[in-house]
Amino acid sequence: MDEKKYAIGIDIGATNTSIGIVNSEGSVIEVQNLMTQSFNRGIDFVNAIVAIGNLYIEKFGRLAIMGIGAGAPNTNFLTGMINENPANLPWQEAVPLRSLLIEKLKLNTVVTNDAKVAAYGEMKFGCATNMKDFIMITLGTGIGSGIVANGQLIYGHDGMAGELGHAIAVKDGRLCGCGRKGCLETYASATGIMKTARQFAASRNVAPFENPRKILFAAQNGDPLALEIFDYTAQILGRSLADAVTYTSPEAFIFFGGLSKAGDYLLQPTKQYFEENLLHIYKNKTKFLISTLQENHAAIVGAAALVF
Amino acid sequence: MDEKKYAIGIDIGATNTSIGIVNSEGSVIEVQNLMTQSFNRGIDFVNAIVAIGNLYIEKFGRLAIMGIGAGAPNTNFLTGMINENPANLPWQEAVPLRSLLIEKLKLNTVVTNDAKVAAYGEMKFGCATNMKDFIMITLGTGIGSGIVANGQLIYGHDGMAGELGHAIAVKDGRLCGCGRKGCLETYASATGIMKTARQFAASRNVAPFENPRKILFAAQNGDPLALEIFDYTAQILGRSLADAVTYTSPEAFIFFGGLSKAGDYLLQPTKQYFEENLLHIYKNKTKFLISTLQENHAAIVGAAALVF
Repeated sequence: MDEKKYAIGIDIGATNTSIGIVNSEGSVIEVQNLMTQSFNRGIDFVNAIVAIGNLYIEKFGRLAIMGIGAGAPNTNFLTGMINENPANLPWQEAVPLRSLLIEKLKLNTVVTNDAKVAAYGEMKFGCATNMKDFIMITLGTGIGSGIVANGQLIYGHDGMAGELGHAIAVKDGRLCGCGRKGCLETYASATGIMKTARQFAASRNVAPFENPRKILFAAQNGDPLALEIFDYTAQILGRSLADAVTYTSPEAFIFFGGLSKAGDYLLQPTKQYFEENLLHIYKNKTKFLISTLQENHAAIVGAAALVF
Repeated sequence: MDEKKYAIGIDIGATNTSIGIVNSEGSVIEVQNLMTQSFNRGIDFVNAIVAIGNLYIEKFGRLAIMGIGAGAPNTNFLTGMINENPANLPWQEAVPLRSLLIEKLKLNTVVTNDAKVAAYGEMKFGCATNMKDFIMITLGTGIGSGIVANGQLIYGHDGMAGELGHAIAVKDGRLCGCGRKGCLETYASATGIMKTARQFAASRNVAPFENPRKILFAAQNGDPLALEIFDYTAQILGRSLADAVTYTSPEAFIFFGGLSKAGDYLLQPTKQYFEENLLHIYKNKTKFLISTLQENHAAIVGAAALVF
C-alpha cells in the first residue's frame, strides 16, 4: 500500500490562485498558479483547478495523496461553498467548490475561509503546534481572523464565526465596505493605515505616504509622522484585541499578512495599548507572535494542513 | 452494582450557598443552604459543605452518586481553585475547592465559574440541548457569560475566558468595579440599569426608581421614563451582542439572572438594536432566548450537569 504522504493545498486569492502539492512535513514540492481574474465563470475556474489536480494525481500517484484543502474568500466551511457575489472574485454565482472537487477529482476535500487557513497552518506546522487557544489575525487589505479554542477552529452555528475585522472599534467611526461604521479593519488593515496616513497628511498639509511600506521605511528612519501613524493604529488595534481576550482568552495572538511585516513598529505599541486596556485578570499573559509560516507559501501549506 | 443516578450540585453565591442532590433528569431531590457570609475562613466553609456532602452520601449511597459539581465566583476551572481576594466572598485566601472536596468526600469533583454553570445546565436540561454554539448571558448584579462553541465551554488558556461583562461597551464610559471605564456591566446589569435610572431621574428632577423591579412595573404601566431606561440599556446591550457575534457566531443568546425577568421590555428593544448593528452576513439568524431552568434551582442543576 502506498503511503499517504501528500496533500493538495489550494490558496484562492482575488488576484492569484496557487495550487500546491505539500508533503507531510509542510514543505511545498511543486506549485502551479492561475490568474483568478481571468475566469468569468466559477465553473471554468474549478475546471482549471481540476486540470492541475489531475496533473498532481498522475505525477505523485492517487494513493499517495490524502486529500485536498482549499482556502478562499467568502467561503463557508460547513457548506463548502464560495458564496454568491464574492467581494473580490470575478464571478457572481455561488460555487459549490467542495462538492465539485470531490466529484471531479475523487479526493477527500475540505474548503474553508482564507483567514482560517493560516490558523490550521500554524497549528500543524507553525508557532501554534502546542497551543489549544489562540487567535490568528491576518492584517492584509482587510482583517481576517481564525479563532482556535479547545484546540478547534470556531466556525459558529452558520460557519461564519471569526470576523474580528468587523467588530466595531470606533463608534460612528470610518465607513466600512460592509456598510457599517467604525469596523476594526477600517483602521488596522493595510487599507485602514493608508486612510490614517492620508488623514494625518491632510491635517498637516504634507504629501501622504504612498503605501504601507513607505510608512514603515519612514518609521525605521525615525520620521515622527510615520511613528504617529503606527501609534494611532496600535491604539485602536490594542484596544480591540483587549476586548477579544474577554471572549476566548487566547494564549497568543499570531499576526500574519502584509501589515504584520511592520513588526515591532506596529506590534510593540499595540502590545502596550493592549496591556493598558486589559482586564486585570488577563494582564501579562498573552503573547504577540508573528507567523512563522513561509510567507509566499503559507496559505498553500495551511490549506494542506486542513487535510493532514 | 448500584446505578449512578445522582450528582451533588453546589451553587456558591455571595450571600447564600445551596448544596443539592440532583437526579439524572435534572430534578432537585433535596437542598441544604449555608449562609456564605458566616464563614471567615475558606476551610471552615469547605468543612460545612463536606458535612452536607457526607449526609447525602449516607442517605443516597456513595455508589449512587456520580460526583460533585460546584459553581462559584472567581473560580478557575483548570485549577479548581477559588482565587484569592474573591470580590464578594468573606475570606481572603485562595481555596483549593476541588482538591479539598475530592480529598474529603472521595468523589469525582468539577468546579467552575458560576457564570459557566448555567451554560452546562442549559446544554444538559434546558433550551440548548441541541445547540453546539451559544452564549449564556447572566444579567445579575454583574454580567457573567458562558461561551459554548463546537459543543464545548470555552475556558481559554488560563481558564478565565468569557468575561463579556468586561468588554468595553462605551469608550471612556462609566467607572467599573474592575477599575476600567465603560465595561458592559456598568450599563446592562441590574447595577448598571440602576445607574441609568438615577442618572435619568437626576436630569429630569424626579425621584429615581428604587430597584429594577420598580422600573419593570412602571414600564408595564407605560411609564415613559421606565421605557426610556430600558431602551437606553437595550441600545448598549444590543450593540455589544452584535460585536460578540463576530467572534463565535452563536445560534442563540440565552439570558438568565434577575434582569432577564424584564423579558420583552428589555429583550425586544435589545434584539432590535442588535439586528441594526449586525454585520449583514449574520442578520436574522440569532435567537434570543430566556433560560428555561427553574430559577431558584438553576445553578444547582447546572452544577450537577457538570458531572452528568
